[in-house]
Amino acid sequence: MDISQFSQINPPQRLLMGPGPINADPRVLRAMSSQLIGQYDPAMTHYMNEVMALYRGVFRTENRWTLLIDGTSRAGIEAILLSAIRPGDKVLVPVFGRFGHLLCEIARRCRAEVHTIEVPWGEVFTPDQIEDALKKVQPRLLLTVQGDTSTTMLQPLNELGALCRKYGVLLYTDATASLGGNALETDAWGLDAVSAGMQKCLGGPSGTSPVTLSPQMEAVIRQRKCVEQGIRTAAHQDGADEMIYSNYFDLGMIMDYWGPERLNHHTEATTALFGARECARLLLQEGLDNSIARHKLHGNALLKGIQGMELETFGDLRHKMNNVLGVVIPAGIDGDRVRKLMLEDFGIEIGTSFGPLHGKVWRIGTMGYNARKDCVMQTLSALEAVLNHCGFRTTQGAGLQAAWDHYGSHA
Amino acid sequence: MDISQFSQINPPQRLLMGPGPINADPRVLRAMSSQLIGQYDPAMTHYMNEVMALYRGVFRTENRWTLLIDGTSRAGIEAILLSAIRPGDKVLVPVFGRFGHLLCEIARRCRAEVHTIEVPWGEVFTPDQIEDALKKVQPRLLLTVQGDTSTTMLQPLNELGALCRKYGVLLYTDATASLGGNALETDAWGLDAVSAGMQKCLGGPSGTSPVTLSPQMEAVIRQRKCVEQGIRTAAHQDGADEMIYSNYFDLGMIMDYWGPERLNHHTEATTALFGARECARLLLQEGLDNSIARHKLHGNALLKGIQGMELETFGDLRHKMNNVLGVVIPAGIDGDRVRKLMLEDFGIEIGTSFGPLHGKVWRIGTMGYNARKDCVMQTLSALEAVLNHCGFRTTQGAGLQAAWDHYGSHA
Repeated sequence: MDISQFSQINPPQRLLMGPGPINADPRVLRAMSSQLIGQYDPAMTHYMNEVMALYRGVFRTENRWTLLIDGTSRAGIEAILLSAIRPGDKVLVPVFGRFGHLLCEIARRCRAEVHTIEVPWGEVFTPDQIEDALKKVQPRLLLTVQGDTSTTMLQPLNELGALCRKYGVLLYTDATASLGGNALETDAWGLDAVSAGMQKCLGGPSGTSPVTLSPQMEAVIRQRKCVEQGIRTAAHQDGADEMIYSNYFDLGMIMDYWGPERLNHHTEATTALFGARECARLLLQEGLDNSIARHKLHGNALLKGIQGMELETFGDLRHKMNNVLGVVIPAGIDGDRVRKLMLEDFGIEIGTSFGPLHGKVWRIGTMGYNARKDCVMQTLSALEAVLNHCGFRTTQGAGLQAAWDHYGSHA
Repeated sequence: MDISQFSQINPPQRLLMGPGPINADPRVLRAMSSQLIGQYDPAMTHYMNEVMALYRGVFRTENRWTLLIDGTSRAGIEAILLSAIRPGDKVLVPVFGRFGHLLCEIARRCRAEVHTIEVPWGEVFTPDQIEDALKKVQPRLLLTVQGDTSTTMLQPLNELGALCRKYGVLLYTDATASLGGNALETDAWGLDAVSAGMQKCLGGPSGTSPVTLSPQMEAVIRQRKCVEQGIRTAAHQDGADEMIYSNYFDLGMIMDYWGPERLNHHTEATTALFGARECARLLLQEGLDNSIARHKLHGNALLKGIQGMELETFGDLRHKMNNVLGVVIPAGIDGDRVRKLMLEDFGIEIGTSFGPLHGKVWRIGTMGYNARKDCVMQTLSALEAVLNHCGFRTTQGAGLQAAWDHYGSHA
């Protein structure tokens, strides 16, 4: 190997306007360039406690167990599902996009009995539909996705906690793509577990996953507690249920590591934790409600601009996520060619789609650090230019004007 | 919550001379402060391919499947064990410290039938001891730790591959703490799978785990292949064996993400990947053999210094890892008070121990960016001062002189 062929890292400048990852806030990257400290240094455990407090603010919860899982957003999902689901448990998953399928798949790997209800991509469920299924299936857990970027839809969750209490069901939500840009009220809505990711509305790089667990969820997980043989003492007792299929994702152990006993588990990913702390700090400094309003403002400006270009949008707009929009690729236009020209000639990335929407829908995000007017205007401007170059005629400047008008009337 | 109480991150300056994490190379932190790019951006997939090539150099292998698992070092261990072990498989684990116990525990969670052999902490196994156990147990996999930081011992591996071939056994090694500072020859030694971490001899922050898989190991894993429902097409076929207990750690899926099909799985932790790329690039620029020699030089200088202070060392020095030393806490000395004074008054962290060595042994590391003369000399100087302050008498300067002499005779 000729090592001189591998130069210093120098990624091209991109404006990331897809469904995530998006550009990280430069302040987050600066926080992540801090030098390391030891994992039991008082300064480190203090930062860990601060992270717990900050994410309680972000998740709107009093839950003691609000912490980070060291992995990408699906690590947070899997830690919760593997820790909570016992083999043979019945779970109900309302599937309205790809990430509902992911919950089913992870639950099957936990050896759950998986029941699903489905709506066509582009729609969400009514509380009645979910209540009917809860009555019929009588699951132990209801597994939901809040914002499924594959369809850009946002499932209303505010009534589900009360339903789950009524039927004695634990309620989990995957808020990877929605948290920070759409309302989520862990305690007020009665969510027993929520997980998230950094690379969407939180404005950081993927690599760590904030989760929060209700006291009810904690009790379920403690039933499956283990302590590793290399560090266990006579004072440690294991739980009553069978141990989970993972050590890395054993939330009982992870709680013992984040809790006062600080029982050694993994070596906390310090740099990722510094980044996650800065993401939450910046979000709460802005104010969570202000951040959600900002995502709504720029998401709607993009929507108006797309409509002003006479492009069709995908899905039920009443239930659109604030931070991502599905745009139907016009007949006769090569969707991948448009994305390539956007990327190569303008340095702007917009997203493709999965499964049934592949080749039919682009997904354009306005989230985190990129929920800004200049990002929206640059993207609309470049998209209009590329579309016209590819033969799709627009009224010159109409899309941009519609976005300007939206900003003008919502200043 | 009063957000103004949470100030900009500002960790205290520490010299991390424990068993890891150690201080990251500042060039690695700078690489990690680069702005993000999309996960399917040609620049990103090019960096992923470069990472594969670079870690082939670090692992000394031609293995195609040499890639990163997004999580700390035990994420890499678990991905390999969960993907390779089928429920009911017999595995053999030679346990010579805490991390052997960890392999047993993860294997039990995979529902393996776990067999162990043990030696007292501070010793390693002979090939004969391992061959006897292979004959008796007839396992499907042999799970080994190369360097177990809990005892500071390095298990010789060079004869184990041939033994495993002889008995038809797959050979895995956890090289988290040893890679880059001690010889490891994946192909020459016949290792079927190796995993590592960033925060030891590689000089980065924990958070991603390089792994390499032999063609034999790949074939085993492909037997358990799944493709997620949300992205599968008619062309995709699943493997013959039962699916593994994890989606996140399903190496079949992770190979499909790193391979030419680029099937969507997790969102690669871009910042961690930038860091891992720079760690490997710097290591290969130095030369792997030079890096190992550097770890040996500074590890031995520390050893001479400790012996010069008339402190006892722990374990069989013929099998010591180059990068960490066990130091017996002298009678009458409060080990935790010494560590506290080292940290608070000198800004130097040295390590405590787990399990049977807790309170009896300090562990002092010289690894990665901190395998340097100034780090060794500062640590010896501070330790001598603190020990004398606590009532342990040394011959003034004898430890430092012994280290200087070692450097003088190995210049």
